[in-house]
Amino acid sequence: MDGKGQLVVIALGGNAFLQKNEKGTVEEQWKNVYAAARQIVDLVKSGYKVVVTHGNGPQVGNVLEWMEALKDKIPPLTMDIAGAMTQGWIGYMLQQAIQNVLIEENLDHRYRVVTLINQVEVKKDDPAWNNPTKYVGPYYYNEAEVKKLVEEKGWVVKPDPRGGFRRVVPSPDVIDNVEKEAIKLLYENGFIVIASGGGGVPVVKDEKGRVSGREAVIDKDLGGQLLASVVGADIFVILTDVEGAYLNYGKPDQKLLRELTASEAKKLLEQGVFGSGSMGPKVKAAIRFAERTGKPAYIGHLYKLKEILEGKSGTKIVPDKK
Amino acid sequence: MDGKGQLVVIALGGNAFLQKNEKGTVEEQWKNVYAAARQIVDLVKSGYKVVVTHGNGPQVGNVLEWMEALKDKIPPLTMDIAGAMTQGWIGYMLQQAIQNVLIEENLDHRYRVVTLINQVEVKKDDPAWNNPTKYVGPYYYNEAEVKKLVEEKGWVVKPDPRGGFRRVVPSPDVIDNVEKEAIKLLYENGFIVIASGGGGVPVVKDEKGRVSGREAVIDKDLGGQLLASVVGADIFVILTDVEGAYLNYGKPDQKLLRELTASEAKKLLEQGVFGSGSMGPKVKAAIRFAERTGKPAYIGHLYKLKEILEGKSGTKIVPDKK
Repeated sequence: MDGKGQLVVIALGGNAFLQKNEKGTVEEQWKNVYAAARQIVDLVKSGYKVVVTHGNGPQVGNVLEWMEALKDKIPPLTMDIAGAMTQGWIGYMLQQAIQNVLIEENLDHRYRVVTLINQVEVKKDDPAWNNPTKYVGPYYYNEAEVKKLVEEKGWVVKPDPRGGFRRVVPSPDVIDNVEKEAIKLLYENGFIVIASGGGGVPVVKDEKGRVSGREAVIDKDLGGQLLASVVGADIFVILTDVEGAYLNYGKPDQKLLRELTASEAKKLLEQGVFGSGSMGPKVKAAIRFAERTGKPAYIGHLYKLKEILEGKSGTKIVPDKK
Repeated sequence: MDGKGQLVVIALGGNAFLQKNEKGTVEEQWKNVYAAARQIVDLVKSGYKVVVTHGNGPQVGNVLEWMEALKDKIPPLTMDIAGAMTQGWIGYMLQQAIQNVLIEENLDHRYRVVTLINQVEVKKDDPAWNNPTKYVGPYYYNEAEVKKLVEEKGWVVKPDPRGGFRRVVPSPDVIDNVEKEAIKLLYENGFIVIASGGGGVPVVKDEKGRVSGREAVIDKDLGGQLLASVVGADIFVILTDVEGAYLNYGKPDQKLLRELTASEAKKLLEQGVFGSGSMGPKVKAAIRFAERTGKPAYIGHLYKLKEILEGKSGTKIVPDKK
């Protein structure tokens, strides 16, 4: 395989940090991060340039739980700050692991790794603001407490399908990556850049162009496709814990979809084939990248990154033929 | 005043985020960060290039307290990760505030702002490893609990002069800024870079050059002078909540020291004039910058940044005349 200097933007899923049945100890996190780092360095070895993004669901959940637990002692921070904290946490681990694996592979004289704190501008008038859907933070079981949170903080709290009540926040659509110039400058100069972590810190612009954070979450693959578009990626890869997008997923006749045009994928998406939870947003982000850039997007398993780019694994979504 | 494109590295103290008698609410933090951002943009307006670093004492203390409070539910993270989280937190706020003030001043077409997650290599054989001195994290009042922490986690716990017991960690000397190439590339291309937050995430190198984090804290001014040296700063400024370094500080005959050579400052430092708590490390870092680079370092009040560089306020430490 020869990457020929093509730029790949890789969106890491939760399994790059936390595997099922793990408690999330620091040791487990490092083990998972190193496994992801080896996949990434393998691509670099094959001649690809790489920009990395990642989710932060469990991590931002932890930060919100921590803050809530001591809210009477330490004033809790807002979600934008919590998001930036997880960019530091995860970015640090990825940056160190990738750098160390580059050293093991004698590639450190050619590449360095760096994490940027990264804001993403979201739509101010997105209908999502009036329809928060993303569960975040701790579970509450006491209805009086829930009522208090709603009244005092203006939170929207809903029953969680997994039991109890939880805060829900909007997940608005993305417009622009605020630090895109820095990301471009760095990867053009041989840096492996980690950016748009957790989808990016959601900010909105005022009439002068000043930005401010919002209590919201950005879908990390939606943030990832934006990142891939603005830095001019040749390929966008969404890595997760399944082989790709399936027809009839989880049923005896499930069938891995190996290649779809954007239009074909859109039709299946509209039919609800991929569900709204996990695969749906991935397919949606892949379609958007293919449509915007005319370049392919892939969805596949974290530990098959190379096979995915070789066309041996995963689901490939290609732009419609003109 | 004309900065003539000179590069200033600014080390922000705790008062850039938290003022005395504040609780540390998010609103208070933004208010303080914007006040600091205005000072910084004022310099940019005057023709200086700027790289910013900052402390993280109260913030990392909060993160450690949060983790400790839920340690039976969520596996606590190590101090290196906690440090990276505070780089995200503080970096995000500074980055957004500076960018917004640049917009207000119509300077945003020339400058952008970016925060890097930044590791700093520390001495492996520093005697500090055997003599931890920096108090971190929550206070403990139960001696049985302290005993358990010492036995189970290998912590060193000491009585805190402010009451109770607290963990102490080493504060080793610094060797190198791991991400220095990225910082240089960015500021040379018109970015205001926020780096080495909280002194930097402390890491040590193994025989192959791979780095790994340590349970330690780096003095932020020591990390700041290293940052200033490696990026080739013309001026290093340490900002705090007093006017500069004093003789007989706090006594009726206290006298602000306006200018000292590195040797003069060293002599006073050895005589214990500046104390070991707050001003001592600042003077030490300023001396080291002046000696290493042959360029001046300043210590002064956050809200007098411009006056300091104009020579109207603060303490200036200059290299010895040859």
